[in-house]
Amino acid sequence: MTLLVRKVKELREVLKGKEVGFVPTMGYLHEGHLALIRRAREENPFVVVSIYVNPTQFGKGEDFERYPRDLERDLKICKKEGVDVVFAPTDEEVYPFGYLTEVHVKGISEVLEGKFRPNHFKGVATVVLKLLNIVRPRRAYFGEKDYQQLKLVEKMVRDLFLDVEIVAVKTVRDKDGLALSSRNTYLSEEERKSALSLYKSLLLAKELIEKGERDAKKIKEKMREFILSFEKVKKIDYVEITDKELNPKDFVEEGDRILLAVWVGNTRLIDNWEVGEPL
Amino acid sequence: MTLLVRKVKELREVLKGKEVGFVPTMGYLHEGHLALIRRAREENPFVVVSIYVNPTQFGKGEDFERYPRDLERDLKICKKEGVDVVFAPTDEEVYPFGYLTEVHVKGISEVLEGKFRPNHFKGVATVVLKLLNIVRPRRAYFGEKDYQQLKLVEKMVRDLFLDVEIVAVKTVRDKDGLALSSRNTYLSEEERKSALSLYKSLLLAKELIEKGERDAKKIKEKMREFILSFEKVKKIDYVEITDKELNPKDFVEEGDRILLAVWVGNTRLIDNWEVGEPL
Repeated sequence: MTLLVRKVKELREVLKGKEVGFVPTMGYLHEGHLALIRRAREENPFVVVSIYVNPTQFGKGEDFERYPRDLERDLKICKKEGVDVVFAPTDEEVYPFGYLTEVHVKGISEVLEGKFRPNHFKGVATVVLKLLNIVRPRRAYFGEKDYQQLKLVEKMVRDLFLDVEIVAVKTVRDKDGLALSSRNTYLSEEERKSALSLYKSLLLAKELIEKGERDAKKIKEKMREFILSFEKVKKIDYVEITDKELNPKDFVEEGDRILLAVWVGNTRLIDNWEVGEPL
Repeated sequence: MTLLVRKVKELREVLKGKEVGFVPTMGYLHEGHLALIRRAREENPFVVVSIYVNPTQFGKGEDFERYPRDLERDLKICKKEGVDVVFAPTDEEVYPFGYLTEVHVKGISEVLEGKFRPNHFKGVATVVLKLLNIVRPRRAYFGEKDYQQLKLVEKMVRDLFLDVEIVAVKTVRDKDGLALSSRNTYLSEEERKSALSLYKSLLLAKELIEKGERDAKKIKEKMREFILSFEKVKKIDYVEITDKELNPKDFVEEGDRILLAVWVGNTRLIDNWEVGEPL
């Protein structure tokens, strides 16, 4: 049985004494979320999924209002997956009247995504800390699709001595390679084709590296050129090659990350790949 | 027996399963700290005192280097008071290499003390959150002497859903009324006399209010004038009258706070009083 909980106080009662695996989400669940939930299901006696579209991580003019929401559908999915509790709080629960506290992970919040979404990671860090403190899980599950978010959460957990294990789960892709995202629902059929430019540019990078190319600048240049050849691509926010800790690299090695953000029509998509891994 | 612990990992082992009362301090313990420790001793089966002079809450040119330290003396006192664990971490323990996370309680951090010590409360909030996460106490004890700090911690605990009860303990004063502070050791004999201006100005305010004065501006003006009449007083940073939540008041009521910060020689002292309480 899956219990729907709306209030922090009720959740605390329900979770007392439980060893919890926690999957924080913004809802509109897809196979990417299911991979997190199934992993949590395997590793924990009790599984909590939170569904909360966090307003503080959206900037002005971003897609907070139109972000897809369907709690009933999400609940059905969670039931099917054997989730014990779905925590779907209101804004007033998460940000009670007069709240003033925010968490900032410096450095990591200002690069890549942070350059284009200035207060995004302050919102992410704050809400993740709140949720971790509310749920107090033994393990919490995050997708590699949002790699920078994953690194931010890992850093915060270490810096603040939180007693939780952060588990990273590989990106889930559609049959054609598109990384799953709730934002894919924004795409028209035409845009969907151009959205493949992200995955395919990573494939291109993989090929180049496998042929011996190590020069990050050259790889990025070729990726850019390739991405911009897709009809519905409006602009590239960034294509970057970094080490595991998001420090830019000039020469590429195994274990490095290639990360990118691309606008397809009015939809902003991100993707990333660890050099040396399958794709 | 009092155990001295230096490492987070060791502390976690020692505290496993314990119901802890926690007294965070910067050491150089005086009767003010003892009031916190004794209260914690009464209310908890296990008492932890931390001794850590937190570098991030000191500004440039402030007294971080000369802040008084005497761990041996503090240990003796803690033994006498029946403290179970003294946690005295190194900087590397609290701020491990590459730390990037900080906590900010907006608003409350920018007024009063915050105006004169710009990053002070960011440092306080961050270290208190770290310590609370390391020690994970049932109850934590803070002195009213640092009233703004107390309010900041209360706010942070609420906003971040920390599972700890914050217990406020009344300011302890010397026989002549001077609020106890480790910084009092900086004062020369002459300065010690002028340091009484803080307490005595609060007494003056109390008298005025008891005689029916309600105009905050007039009370503050008279306090200022009085304080500046002391020989070794160099300047006043602020004299303010606020409600319990540190919002400025024009007309004074019971339950309001009068707060002040005064430089006596090269020593900055603070004090406060709740209107209607004994002094």
